[in-house]
Amino acid sequence: MKGELLYEGKAKRVYQAEDKPGQLVLAYKDDVTAFNGEKKDTLPGKARLNNAISSHVFQELHERGIRTHFIKKLSATEQLVHQSDIIPLEVVVRNTAAGSMVRRLGIEPKTALTPPVIELFYKNDVLGDPLINDDHALLLSDVMYEDLNAIKAQALEVNRQLIDLFTASGIELVDFKLEFGRVASGNIVLADEISPDTCRLWDIETRENLDKDVYRQGTGDLLEVYEKLMTRLEAAL
Amino acid sequence: MKGELLYEGKAKRVYQAEDKPGQLVLAYKDDVTAFNGEKKDTLPGKARLNNAISSHVFQELHERGIRTHFIKKLSATEQLVHQSDIIPLEVVVRNTAAGSMVRRLGIEPKTALTPPVIELFYKNDVLGDPLINDDHALLLSDVMYEDLNAIKAQALEVNRQLIDLFTASGIELVDFKLEFGRVASGNIVLADEISPDTCRLWDIETRENLDKDVYRQGTGDLLEVYEKLMTRLEAAL
Ligand SMILES: Nc1ncnc2c1ncn2[C@@H]1O[C@H](COP(=O)(O)OP(=O)(O)O)[C@@H](O)[C@H]1O
Ligand SMILES: Nc1ncnc2c1ncn2[C@@H]1O[C@H](COP(=O)(O)OP(=O)(O)O)[C@@H](O)[C@H]1O
Ligand SMILES: [Mg+2]
Ligand SMILES: [Mg+2]
Repeated sequence: MKGELLYEGKAKRVYQAEDKPGQLVLAYKDDVTAFNGEKKDTLPGKARLNNAISSHVFQELHERGIRTHFIKKLSATEQLVHQSDIIPLEVVVRNTAAGSMVRRLGIEPKTALTPPVIELFYKNDVLGDPLINDDHALLLSDVMYEDLNAIKAQALEVNRQLIDLFTASGIELVDFKLEFGRVASGNIVLADEISPDTCRLWDIETRENLDKDVYRQGTGDLLEVYEKLMTRLEAAL
Repeated sequence: MKGELLYEGKAKRVYQAEDKPGQLVLAYKDDVTAFNGEKKDTLPGKARLNNAISSHVFQELHERGIRTHFIKKLSATEQLVHQSDIIPLEVVVRNTAAGSMVRRLGIEPKTALTPPVIELFYKNDVLGDPLINDDHALLLSDVMYEDLNAIKAQALEVNRQLIDLFTASGIELVDFKLEFGRVASGNIVLADEISPDTCRLWDIETRENLDKDVYRQGTGDLLEVYEKLMTRLEAAL
């Protein structure tokens, strides 16, 4: 099923899909990294959990009318997606103040953000993925003004659908990071992954972390937490 | 002429104007600071130069139809302005890549930026004046979406007028920082100062610095450079 290895990131390997031009196999890794790669570990089982959760979420988004790269889950740790030219922007949507936003802007942690706040980061490991504004995004990527507005509108629609999805499992969607890519048709679709690596998720009742913050902060067992999250998402089906 | 001292910043003291409600006296100081206050000195004569240059520039902008706080120059180091509620945003306009933008985004120094790039910084010394985006600005200040668009349009118009003004003296306007304030009528006007402390200015021919970068980088005598700038601006009258 897998052809040539095209590139490898911190969380996934990306292969050409054999005999399927324009399609890719995303193979999740057991690696976990934080603080721009300063902290890292290998946790056997993480690939399976992230692949399961991200496949589940993308399938749900697809059914709710969002255009995504996702085709199907292939195996425990792999999925098939449409190849895209990834736009080098990390699009973050925040419903509740936490993390870097709280530190940068001195906002009270857990402040409700209504309307949600969108942030763009320049996807560039060497520069440490700096926060940028729209003018920078137009300068640094090949997106046009209209593309940027369409991306933001899509990000807010994804937010509405994800809030709906997670709320059904008693989970608060605090914030999350999206990536978008341009597929062969020229359309911009949601790409990459949506998982506890890329979302901040809190139990609605207890506000305990159900995401990578347990690893960043060393406050819990990542595999246990991701397993619990998966179970809760499946229970709501 | 000066009433009560209202507050003191790094570069100016702000007094109530005596018997003139709604008006302020801005008294320039001989202090110079850089790197968020880490480097500082007192250079006798700087107050006079900054007051002269900023008064000249604001008078020019007024004559070119920009709404500003400026009323008149009162003395060598003081000017009379309309009191305003300063919006806690530093609005930076960039025509050529330099300084923090080059470092943050890895852009080639001296890249021409067309259209000009606008950046917003949250005016907060404790947080180190962080770069923010429009969503942050709406969250952190009392401006509305429409105000923000009006501020950006005004900043671009100021840019056009300043380019015209400085070009006549053989000077390239690389970038500059503006502050806006809301006056009693509710209108948002250009406030604070426009000086070699707040602009990056290069000789068009030699590209030598005619601004505070000579102090930041320790590459020249600030007073000599500001004096030269003032002389060149006056020569173009
Ligand atoms: N549909 C897609 N087409 C092409 N590349 C993709 C697609 N989805 C995700 N990618 C890219 O796969 C790479 C590997 O993912 P990951 O390991 O998460 O990388 P990173 O280290 O940048 O987080 C990333 O560059 C990501 O943008
Ligand atoms: N028209 C105005 N009304 C009220 N405050 C003003 C006006 N123009 C400038 N100021 C404020 O005067 C203060 C002193 O200026 P400055 O010494 O440059 O301060 P800073 O240390 O923040 O750079 C600043 O807070 C500035 O925003
Ligand atoms: Mg990734
Ligand atoms: Mg100042």
